[in-house]
Amino acid sequence: MNTEPRNVVVDYGNSAAKVGIFNGDTLMARHVFAEAEELKTFLQNFSASGFIISSVNRDAAIVADWAQNAKQKFILSPSLPLPIQNRYATPATLGVDRIAGVCGALRLHPGAPCLVIDAGTCITYDFLDKDGVYYGGGISPGLRMRFQAVHTFTAKLPLIAPVDHPPLIGNSTETCIQSGVENGVVAELNGIIAQYREKFEGLKVILCGGDALFFENQLKGSIFAVPELVLSGLNSILIYNVSR
Amino acid sequence: MNTEPRNVVVDYGNSAAKVGIFNGDTLMARHVFAEAEELKTFLQNFSASGFIISSVNRDAAIVADWAQNAKQKFILSPSLPLPIQNRYATPATLGVDRIAGVCGALRLHPGAPCLVIDAGTCITYDFLDKDGVYYGGGISPGLRMRFQAVHTFTAKLPLIAPVDHPPLIGNSTETCIQSGVENGVVAELNGIIAQYREKFEGLKVILCGGDALFFENQLKGSIFAVPELVLSGLNSILIYNVSR
Repeated sequence: MNTEPRNVVVDYGNSAAKVGIFNGDTLMARHVFAEAEELKTFLQNFSASGFIISSVNRDAAIVADWAQNAKQKFILSPSLPLPIQNRYATPATLGVDRIAGVCGALRLHPGAPCLVIDAGTCITYDFLDKDGVYYGGGISPGLRMRFQAVHTFTAKLPLIAPVDHPPLIGNSTETCIQSGVENGVVAELNGIIAQYREKFEGLKVILCGGDALFFENQLKGSIFAVPELVLSGLNSILIYNVSR
Repeated sequence: MNTEPRNVVVDYGNSAAKVGIFNGDTLMARHVFAEAEELKTFLQNFSASGFIISSVNRDAAIVADWAQNAKQKFILSPSLPLPIQNRYATPATLGVDRIAGVCGALRLHPGAPCLVIDAGTCITYDFLDKDGVYYGGGISPGLRMRFQAVHTFTAKLPLIAPVDHPPLIGNSTETCIQSGVENGVVAELNGIIAQYREKFEGLKVILCGGDALFFENQLKGSIFAVPELVLSGLNSILIYNVSR
């Protein structure tokens, strides 16, 4: 039986709950639960040292109650103390995933300016300066959202699926949409990254989210793909609050 | 009374009909009709030498009948002869506006490779080589469509309007969406244009569509903003077919 202290972090998104089990900074296991009942059973039976949840979906307090064996429990909210300084003008409407992402970046690259790019439903850009001050960034439509938009908001264009490396010049409706959307997103990412690099010397660029691996090889310069950045960030917020 | 030969070209889009009156290559007047009845009255009373219509909305043949005084009439369809060579793999599903745009580009810059960017509901990229051969290009969501998508396809993000020159780093939900969408589109446009310029020496880049003037000053290198490129292109297709 494992008797080492283990932290449990839960990232409860729109479609599923991701759970990370950490020993210190190390992600030991990762679980995905599509059903709340299965998450409940898992948490009720897991003996954790610390527990944290970030939720955009469920009432976080209910899920925290399920973790009945955890010694210390935290819910990520705008009022929870953070290892970063938050200069976002409207912290109450700042997505918890974005907060977790920049906290993860701080833990990975302390003392360096960081740009976190979460390529998910939306693409979010979040900037943290070398002193750990978070300012904000940008939000644009995600890869799949762009395919969906072109179909939904026009009368005639079909819903197309992405392919790997479409040519620059598509020669049919399908390949034109693949070229425009995919080469367009990659051009956007490279262009925005270049603008941040120009402003902030020694910038670390960290790519996370469901489409991180799709984009990783198409971006210029040094990029750190860290698919589990949000889980790591939640763990760092948990560690910070346990040690306060 | 004006007795010079005049061409009437109609671009019947989803929301309105644009009408251009040309004398040779010169656009003499431009009218926009939101109501079909007003377009009908206008066309019935106008004495034209040539007439052409491109329609994504109405039955083009009905509108062509309204132009009862025009001597020669053409309807833009996949079977109408064009001044360009069309290598698009699926010409039946190629938008008539895209065809008209590249024909307008050929008339403006004969002998040069051209990239036509129509920044409207969607952003379309269309490439014509120096020999007047059209291949295709790309389709991505337009500026306003991206704002709409971020709102429609997420639970919590509001519908935001564009502003001029948002900062790179937004510090609220509103300014983050403005930064992400607008700086993102500009980065996409600049990145895609750069890829075409690298491949095709002497490339002419022509920007048209409702958002052309919004983007014009934000793009790198020499760009020709020609808001009425589609009307000019329709006129060039009309001239081509009259003289065959």
